[in-house]
Amino acid sequence: MTKISADKKKVCKNFDENLPRVGVVGSGSFATAIVKMLVENSEKVHWCVRNEFVKGAIELRGHNPVYLTSVSFNKENLAITTDINELVSNCDVIVLATPSIYLSDAIEKMTCDYTCKIFVSAIKGIVPKVNDVVAHYLRDEFKIGFRCQAVIAGPCHAEEVAMERLSYLTIATAEDKVGEILKKLFASDFINVHTSKDILGNEYSAILKNIYAIGAGMASGLGYGDNFAAVFVSNAIREMEVFLEAIYEEPRDVNESAYLGDLLVTAYSLFSRNRSLGNLIGKGYTVKSAIQSMNMIAEGYYAADSVYKTGKEKGLDLPIINTIYNILYEEKSAEKLFKKLTLKLN
Amino acid sequence: MTKISADKKKVCKNFDENLPRVGVVGSGSFATAIVKMLVENSEKVHWCVRNEFVKGAIELRGHNPVYLTSVSFNKENLAITTDINELVSNCDVIVLATPSIYLSDAIEKMTCDYTCKIFVSAIKGIVPKVNDVVAHYLRDEFKIGFRCQAVIAGPCHAEEVAMERLSYLTIATAEDKVGEILKKLFASDFINVHTSKDILGNEYSAILKNIYAIGAGMASGLGYGDNFAAVFVSNAIREMEVFLEAIYEEPRDVNESAYLGDLLVTAYSLFSRNRSLGNLIGKGYTVKSAIQSMNMIAEGYYAADSVYKTGKEKGLDLPIINTIYNILYEEKSAEKLFKKLTLKLN
Repeated sequence: MTKISADKKKVCKNFDENLPRVGVVGSGSFATAIVKMLVENSEKVHWCVRNEFVKGAIELRGHNPVYLTSVSFNKENLAITTDINELVSNCDVIVLATPSIYLSDAIEKMTCDYTCKIFVSAIKGIVPKVNDVVAHYLRDEFKIGFRCQAVIAGPCHAEEVAMERLSYLTIATAEDKVGEILKKLFASDFINVHTSKDILGNEYSAILKNIYAIGAGMASGLGYGDNFAAVFVSNAIREMEVFLEAIYEEPRDVNESAYLGDLLVTAYSLFSRNRSLGNLIGKGYTVKSAIQSMNMIAEGYYAADSVYKTGKEKGLDLPIINTIYNILYEEKSAEKLFKKLTLKLN
Repeated sequence: MTKISADKKKVCKNFDENLPRVGVVGSGSFATAIVKMLVENSEKVHWCVRNEFVKGAIELRGHNPVYLTSVSFNKENLAITTDINELVSNCDVIVLATPSIYLSDAIEKMTCDYTCKIFVSAIKGIVPKVNDVVAHYLRDEFKIGFRCQAVIAGPCHAEEVAMERLSYLTIATAEDKVGEILKKLFASDFINVHTSKDILGNEYSAILKNIYAIGAGMASGLGYGDNFAAVFVSNAIREMEVFLEAIYEEPRDVNESAYLGDLLVTAYSLFSRNRSLGNLIGKGYTVKSAIQSMNMIAEGYYAADSVYKTGKEKGLDLPIINTIYNILYEEKSAEKLFKKLTLKLN
């Protein structure tokens, strides 16, 4: 108990006077983009990467050897490790930015004391192990309450962050004070930060948009055009609203950038893996062969299963989610199901 | 009076038993797309084109010589004229589909009796002569009341209609019955039709989206990327909602396809003239040279002036509209004004 209160004090002190010590877990493109954002404000950013090869390469060359290779770091600003306990011990704020399927591998090695630390999820997917969102996984498995959590949302292609093109982030926290502190960590010339209190809404929205991006890709692969894509997206945002309201009541406008903006950037991006997966399936690949041929993780694939089941449990009318689920998991014909779906859209 | 009641009867009879006789005014790409939609259901579609050259070319070759040349018509299905009085006299439903700046030229030649006929606007712009929307122009200048009017809205690139790619139209009418009749005229294998009662909202939304498309083009020309575009569009739809609510109170969801869908298809289309105009200006062209170099009509240019003034009169907070207006009409620097605008978006 003494330790915890001492920690509490320390964290609060840090938070009041200085920027908190911050670290990032993950070495994919979004993790790398986040490190790039953070070095704008923090002299030292801790970075827990996947393995010694990545660590060595960054230390040697000052850039990630695999993702966002164009981003050069000043090595003095980075403290790179492959040990999550080292990272967590040295930080007050820990940004989780692995693909969702690797999160449990990374974080379950955490044996150090993490009381009073803030865990920020930049993960946009379901944790397969528990078939639930990160916020619930952290709360249930690690006893990290919502007051010690934050979610980063917003339309934010890592590639554009690399180019320092103006991007907007929404940081959702239960406590305003935590939101303001995180804003100071992330805001810069090329990152505009807004705060929100809608932790679960922002997390689910980021997950849902990946499923809708698979659908947008399916439509495109099936030969539907831009007129239909616009109808599809405008139905998707309304369906998302239905889902979010059922999950977590909170005054929100789904047309804010964190919800609609993020959906747009994903559904309209030709570089989205989720959209690409859908496109292959629309073109006639089987789901299995589409997944294999991509050799990348399409978060929306796992999310579709979880969100479909949640929707069913809650008795929600989600025609787009149901269509995508049935194509991905029930081997139904994309062509036939989309034809049926077109009659339900308006 | 006798004549009017006789006409009324006739129109009603027609409407009850058969498809009404329908005609289209205009020979651009959207007009041509509309004729293509209508010949799916009507054995004879009347078509008032701009001049004898266009008339002769369609009669000779069965396609528009300038726009959507790929669309072949069965000449027996068309009754082509250059005389608006001939067209109006022979039709119960008249679809207006000229560019907005040519509407008054076309329609002011109308001297025949047009009582009890339905005028459907497929025009997405301000009538410059009166600096007002088509619905008001028809009502004020021609005494065509809202009950005899309809507005076609929805994300509908003419080029995709030409290819018979599934598209959605919203037809807004004051009377449900008229909406149902028009639905029968327009709906087909590749056109899904929904009805609405929001005549002015649908018309203004189609006009506003052209202005926002100019803005999206400016942002792109200035070097802003996809992340910003998504933020821009998600702010634009909220600003559109503010404007529509102030203009015409009506229960509406701006995320329906007629509003958000139409904004998306225009703001994200590289082929939109409005977006192209903005893009040139963002790249540094003066407004005048950008307009001259395009050699096409960007409806949003005229609309920006009208909408800006309406917004000002009503004391509305429309930061995006104001930014675009000031760049287009006040010779302000796009770079500087967009920098200021970025701070107002979220």
